[in-house]
Amino acid sequence: MNPCALNSPLPPAILQRAVPDAFIAALKSRFAERCATALVVREQHGRDESSFEAPPPAAVVFAENTQDVADAVKLANDYGVPVIPFGVGTSLEGHLLAVQGGISLDVSRMNQVQSINAEDLTVTVQAGVTRKQLNEAVKSTGLFFPIDPGADATLGGMCATRASGTNAVRYGTMRENVLALQVVTASGDVIRTGTRAKKSSAGYDLTRLLVGSEGTLGVITEVTVKLYPLPEAISAAICSFPSIEAAVRTTIQIIQMGIPIARVELIDANTVRMVKAYAKLALREEPLLLMEFHGSPASVKEQAETVQEIASEFGGNAFEWATTPEERTRLWTARHNAYFAAIQSKPGCRAISTDTCVPISRLADCLLDSVAEADASGIPYFLVGHVGDGNFHFGYLIDPTKPEERDTAEKLNHALVARALALDGTCSGEHGVGLHKMDFLVTEAGAGAMDMMRSIKKALDPNNIMNPGKIFLL
Amino acid sequence: MNPCALNSPLPPAILQRAVPDAFIAALKSRFAERCATALVVREQHGRDESSFEAPPPAAVVFAENTQDVADAVKLANDYGVPVIPFGVGTSLEGHLLAVQGGISLDVSRMNQVQSINAEDLTVTVQAGVTRKQLNEAVKSTGLFFPIDPGADATLGGMCATRASGTNAVRYGTMRENVLALQVVTASGDVIRTGTRAKKSSAGYDLTRLLVGSEGTLGVITEVTVKLYPLPEAISAAICSFPSIEAAVRTTIQIIQMGIPIARVELIDANTVRMVKAYAKLALREEPLLLMEFHGSPASVKEQAETVQEIASEFGGNAFEWATTPEERTRLWTARHNAYFAAIQSKPGCRAISTDTCVPISRLADCLLDSVAEADASGIPYFLVGHVGDGNFHFGYLIDPTKPEERDTAEKLNHALVARALALDGTCSGEHGVGLHKMDFLVTEAGAGAMDMMRSIKKALDPNNIMNPGKIFLL
Repeated sequence: MNPCALNSPLPPAILQRAVPDAFIAALKSRFAERCATALVVREQHGRDESSFEAPPPAAVVFAENTQDVADAVKLANDYGVPVIPFGVGTSLEGHLLAVQGGISLDVSRMNQVQSINAEDLTVTVQAGVTRKQLNEAVKSTGLFFPIDPGADATLGGMCATRASGTNAVRYGTMRENVLALQVVTASGDVIRTGTRAKKSSAGYDLTRLLVGSEGTLGVITEVTVKLYPLPEAISAAICSFPSIEAAVRTTIQIIQMGIPIARVELIDANTVRMVKAYAKLALREEPLLLMEFHGSPASVKEQAETVQEIASEFGGNAFEWATTPEERTRLWTARHNAYFAAIQSKPGCRAISTDTCVPISRLADCLLDSVAEADASGIPYFLVGHVGDGNFHFGYLIDPTKPEERDTAEKLNHALVARALALDGTCSGEHGVGLHKMDFLVTEAGAGAMDMMRSIKKALDPNNIMNPGKIFLL
Repeated sequence: MNPCALNSPLPPAILQRAVPDAFIAALKSRFAERCATALVVREQHGRDESSFEAPPPAAVVFAENTQDVADAVKLANDYGVPVIPFGVGTSLEGHLLAVQGGISLDVSRMNQVQSINAEDLTVTVQAGVTRKQLNEAVKSTGLFFPIDPGADATLGGMCATRASGTNAVRYGTMRENVLALQVVTASGDVIRTGTRAKKSSAGYDLTRLLVGSEGTLGVITEVTVKLYPLPEAISAAICSFPSIEAAVRTTIQIIQMGIPIARVELIDANTVRMVKAYAKLALREEPLLLMEFHGSPASVKEQAETVQEIASEFGGNAFEWATTPEERTRLWTARHNAYFAAIQSKPGCRAISTDTCVPISRLADCLLDSVAEADASGIPYFLVGHVGDGNFHFGYLIDPTKPEERDTAEKLNHALVARALALDGTCSGEHGVGLHKMDFLVTEAGAGAMDMMRSIKKALDPNNIMNPGKIFLL
């Protein structure tokens, strides 16, 4: 029953619940052509970027507003049919798979930026707005939304998985940056959590309960997030290191000194090679740190000088600077392409991603042993990391037709997670639990906390229709 | 039934639940002299800094470790008796009052600093450790814990009310700074939430559900929080303004420009006068901003210069600087004494505190009209504010023997909260709901969100023993 212990793609049929014809008929009656049952549409909504497979959902409903979501959820609740919220399909842990059957509820057409409150540094958007769209919409205000998980995910999806990414080391994650939500509950009611006030002690923090709930407690339909003034000065740099250890130790010292670095990303030599081939970039094939500094010109200069000193102590090579927006975009495109470059390096492969995050002082311990194990396994992999937060990702590149490769990758993953938990870390820094990390979560949280999560789920979704079978089994 | 609509101290007797003799006998048997029933001890634990009154709890249990807490809660759950967690009694909204009877569970003896992980910028303490004790304990590491609600509250209590205070504008609130908790649930089980990793997407965010739950979901027994490097440079300043509006408009511009100011506190002329009399300080009797800048010497200089320019545009007087620790302590002591200075200014009075928080652009609208209303009412008051966050507090000084004064104060409070909610703000920035803001919370959150809170409460505390009658009535 445990997906991550399986040596083959998930066989979820045993869990499939009935989807009554009358329910589909009711959806068709309410949504007409916006309730799609064509196989190609269902298949497109029945997968994500994970390596799992499951039968597609029975139908896909395209919601255009909150009332659509409420009506679809109400019908599903009446019929006891699972509902899987869908943004743009970039999740990595099997969140979107219809492992218990049911329908996919696509909110990508809910893509209106509703109110930009520049003078308060807040913006409210519909859940289907993507982060790039959001930044485009607020560009003229001199503000930006920093959370950048790489993929151009929707804000709703980023809330659901408590996403973070490259800028989190300075600006925090979705946990710290969501002020308020509109949510459709499992019974189809529309509620609001939070206000636009920067802080509040008014009752239970429902906003943060829903952020990271992976669609299991309701459908997020609107999101209010913080914005930040575009820094007066931005400067990005690459620094190569003789070893991963040198790069990691540099990072640890940067963080321990409290330098407010905006981004500090590790890319290992393997991955540099893959990215070079993919993007035709001139990069030294050595472990890299990709860094970015935000602030006043004086502050950026000061940060950069201090970081250069630290890096050189650990054998870091001369920095290559990118100060124009175009050069910076090129650098960060290389980083964001790591995943695709890696996938392309082994035709037909799938990536099994890890997502551990540990206290910064434990980063070297956690990472270096895992690199040694991955090297010894013979499985090709990429390694990238938001190392300033103690978070990094191996992507083990497996041939999905070879069970032994999946098995080896999962063994590496298990060893890594065990190590991270022993070091006071977490099995998931930012991707969420989904199907893939359910066992890990039990080990991390313990039976008592799992009971608390299950009690909450049962209280808020008594018919277990909201993305069932994710995070935990009831 | 609504405490805050009453014109006299709370008459909670109608809600009192039975406390069986056998339960008290069982507590005495387990805790011996650490289960106190002397009236003086019970009375001391049956009140807080609010203006409410209620009969004292039936007993006070002094817990010395987590097992004590678990055993006391288990017994209470078996007998269906309310448990009110107690730290040092500094809460402001009636949180500690035994409005439904039951026992007070005093965790102040759980005051061990358990592990300082300086290299990870984290510390784990028992819930009874106070913030000053914590900062004393970590002083030698060059780190500090920034959250400063004024009172020397316990970390457990600060978690329970989602406290913040003067430094929150830069460092965030307890919401952003708690990494992990140990909690005794309503059934007496011990659970852990979170890890020492800086971020996580591993399951529901139980940590943030419990932060701000005001003792209604469990007893917090251990707390892991973030620490920060002591800034290389700190500089504090006072600036007087010709009007509250000028001070507020200066603040709004500081925040909108993204200046990373560490503290920006408003004190109105009334309060300056009270503080001067209390603390024998030489201050101009004009509205003040008390500010603090943290960073590298260059950054602090840059911030201060920019802020001085902004202040002078709004007619702010020359800054008085305090750069030595002693001078800074004197300034912040004056700020922290505002409450006591105000209470002393009207012998025998009680303060009815407001706690609204609004988006920064709405601050002037919210605050200035409320000042006019308070002035017109004739009730003396103090006004202080963490204005950089849009949060401020009126303290209406009432004679508790005069119902008409309480009535006037509550009318002012109601008008202020209505104004704040209309401006997309919250009824409580940092004090919590307790007894005092239950009606306001319903207006703010709406029926749907209140239902969600009640469902969670019922699921996690089916016998309603954890601090019942606070935040909402079931």
